[in-house]
Amino acid sequence: MRVTVQKEGLVKKIQDVMRAVSSKTPLPILTTIKLSADLEGLTLTGSNSTMSIQTVLPQSEQVEIKEVGAIALQAKVFSEIVKNLSEGPIDLIVSNLKAVIRSGKSEFKLNGMNAEEYPRLPEWETDYSFYLPSQLLRTLIRQTVFAVSSSETRPILTGVNWRLQNEELVCSATDSHLLALRKVQVPESSPFNIVIPGKSLQELYALLPDTDEIITMKTNSSQMLFELPHLHFHTRLLEGAYPDITRFITNEYKMKMSLSTQSFSQVMKRSLLLAGNYHVVKFISNANGEVRIISQSPEVGELIEDVETSSITGEETNISFNAKYMADALKAHDGDTITISFTGAMRPIIITSPDDEDILQLILPVRSY
Amino acid sequence: MRVTVQKEGLVKKIQDVMRAVSSKTPLPILTTIKLSADLEGLTLTGSNSTMSIQTVLPQSEQVEIKEVGAIALQAKVFSEIVKNLSEGPIDLIVSNLKAVIRSGKSEFKLNGMNAEEYPRLPEWETDYSFYLPSQLLRTLIRQTVFAVSSSETRPILTGVNWRLQNEELVCSATDSHLLALRKVQVPESSPFNIVIPGKSLQELYALLPDTDEIITMKTNSSQMLFELPHLHFHTRLLEGAYPDITRFITNEYKMKMSLSTQSFSQVMKRSLLLAGNYHVVKFISNANGEVRIISQSPEVGELIEDVETSSITGEETNISFNAKYMADALKAHDGDTITISFTGAMRPIIITSPDDEDILQLILPVRSY
Repeated sequence: MRVTVQKEGLVKKIQDVMRAVSSKTPLPILTTIKLSADLEGLTLTGSNSTMSIQTVLPQSEQVEIKEVGAIALQAKVFSEIVKNLSEGPIDLIVSNLKAVIRSGKSEFKLNGMNAEEYPRLPEWETDYSFYLPSQLLRTLIRQTVFAVSSSETRPILTGVNWRLQNEELVCSATDSHLLALRKVQVPESSPFNIVIPGKSLQELYALLPDTDEIITMKTNSSQMLFELPHLHFHTRLLEGAYPDITRFITNEYKMKMSLSTQSFSQVMKRSLLLAGNYHVVKFISNANGEVRIISQSPEVGELIEDVETSSITGEETNISFNAKYMADALKAHDGDTITISFTGAMRPIIITSPDDEDILQLILPVRSY
Repeated sequence: MRVTVQKEGLVKKIQDVMRAVSSKTPLPILTTIKLSADLEGLTLTGSNSTMSIQTVLPQSEQVEIKEVGAIALQAKVFSEIVKNLSEGPIDLIVSNLKAVIRSGKSEFKLNGMNAEEYPRLPEWETDYSFYLPSQLLRTLIRQTVFAVSSSETRPILTGVNWRLQNEELVCSATDSHLLALRKVQVPESSPFNIVIPGKSLQELYALLPDTDEIITMKTNSSQMLFELPHLHFHTRLLEGAYPDITRFITNEYKMKMSLSTQSFSQVMKRSLLLAGNYHVVKFISNANGEVRIISQSPEVGELIEDVETSSITGEETNISFNAKYMADALKAHDGDTITISFTGAMRPIIITSPDDEDILQLILPVRSY
């Protein structure tokens, strides 16, 4: 294999595939990046047991393929070497499982592994294909993935459920205390119901361009492929039944108020300073529609903050909740105003947006004494 | 105590004194910031066992003292609270070891400690006073403090030696493998010889304005005070005799070369990628004046890099050194060109600047087999 490539383009592509490479893996080959040169261009692949990222530097003025071939190189050291080369063209010359990386007056020799040992993507048949603009895909990942569970107690909750029916994609995530849901219209699509690992979606998010470029998605019940420009992102799906979360969602309420997203976020931030390890704050509204947050830490002190609302209707309320969950839920809202509905003493608190019917979060109150 | 103060100014002053506050201290009072209001203004003090920072918000349009008094408040929580308040004026009201912090619709109550328990700065007599522009003081700290030892095996080496004689201040630091020295002229000064803790200098560096403002320094053999605008920085000095480092410095050499600071820095960076945990690289120059760096890691690979010099004179050289020390030494140089002198097989490598006689670093070679 002999390739000449400009530094800038190669650095970017290495960064992209590094998102799938973990340093903690029992398989040495998965600590490498696979490089393979053919007539199409230079292809880089990074992978862990869950996701794989494959990206192409197409043959062009920037990328000259002089001899085809392949090798697998230690991801971390290869990445650092390329980043630290001087600007300009880089020669990659591979023979006998060794790579020479030459640029300016530097000549690196790196020991590699046989590219044949690199795991191939499993063969699978696509059952469903659908399409979304990259920007919208980013938004729906951002508005849901923060709510996945970080605990492996119920592995299915570490993923985001994507359920497509009636040309509507409903994405939802929950760690069983906080739930985030986002809907989006997907015309001309067939129904499916899958659970995508949260970690895969976080890495995918970072790779998606912030443009209207259309992304093609292909899936069956166990695998999923996202086709980005010059990049394929493959992830295994989580197996098992995702809990039915719609039963928690209701339009009924005992008290409902609208208020500024930003200023309530700041109240939550302040209340967290004294809310202790469990992040519990008290919420009180009286018959005059006055709303107050109280956060107390016996040793340190307390915060009492009056909260301004733009509208409030319903019963007096006295409830405790996790301010960290509320703060996270508010971050997912892009609108200036949110609506918070309290549905009962130990029943969900539902956060919606008056400007956007497609987004909803739900948090469970905390019993306090 | 009752004070009204604008958020912006208070945040800055809290940040400044926090530099002396450690969360790891056996004395609970040292985890606090002391606030004291008198007719002059609001004074904040932070301290650990080595350094103390005292800063004043003078009474002004921004700072209104309504009632004098004092309290000590948990540094971390007080700092976070003030940072997260809405913009605008903050009321601080202290009574019965409790502080009320009021701003907008927020009202924090914080438990405090008696300000009388806060340690007072020791009384001491100034033996020597001298003056330097803040910018120059920053430069000489930056060019020396990186070389202090991080190990407590020889505590004296965790400090920077400041030796003033013949109106010349010589600042030097060494961890016994790398040595950094910087000289500066100090007119009308009396001789002294002190060792300032490296950690104190690092915090002081961050507080010094990047301007020509003159900083007054006062010292005796055990304490030192830096007078910044509206801020006093006090540090204890290290006790003990600092080793005589001048005996290592020589103008004689076996080989000497000049080259670009920036490009040699980049060679060092690249060579570190394969130099292993001990950072050892080989340096070879031949009779034709060709210079080469070789960095080898048996498992990973090797780098061979030819180095361009602007001048070279003396014997062929074949030596090994720690590339991390060399990279650190180069960082202290602001000039485009450096001169490196090799003084013998197991004798110091001396790095100087052709543009600036006041700066020098020295590293010891490494025996390699």
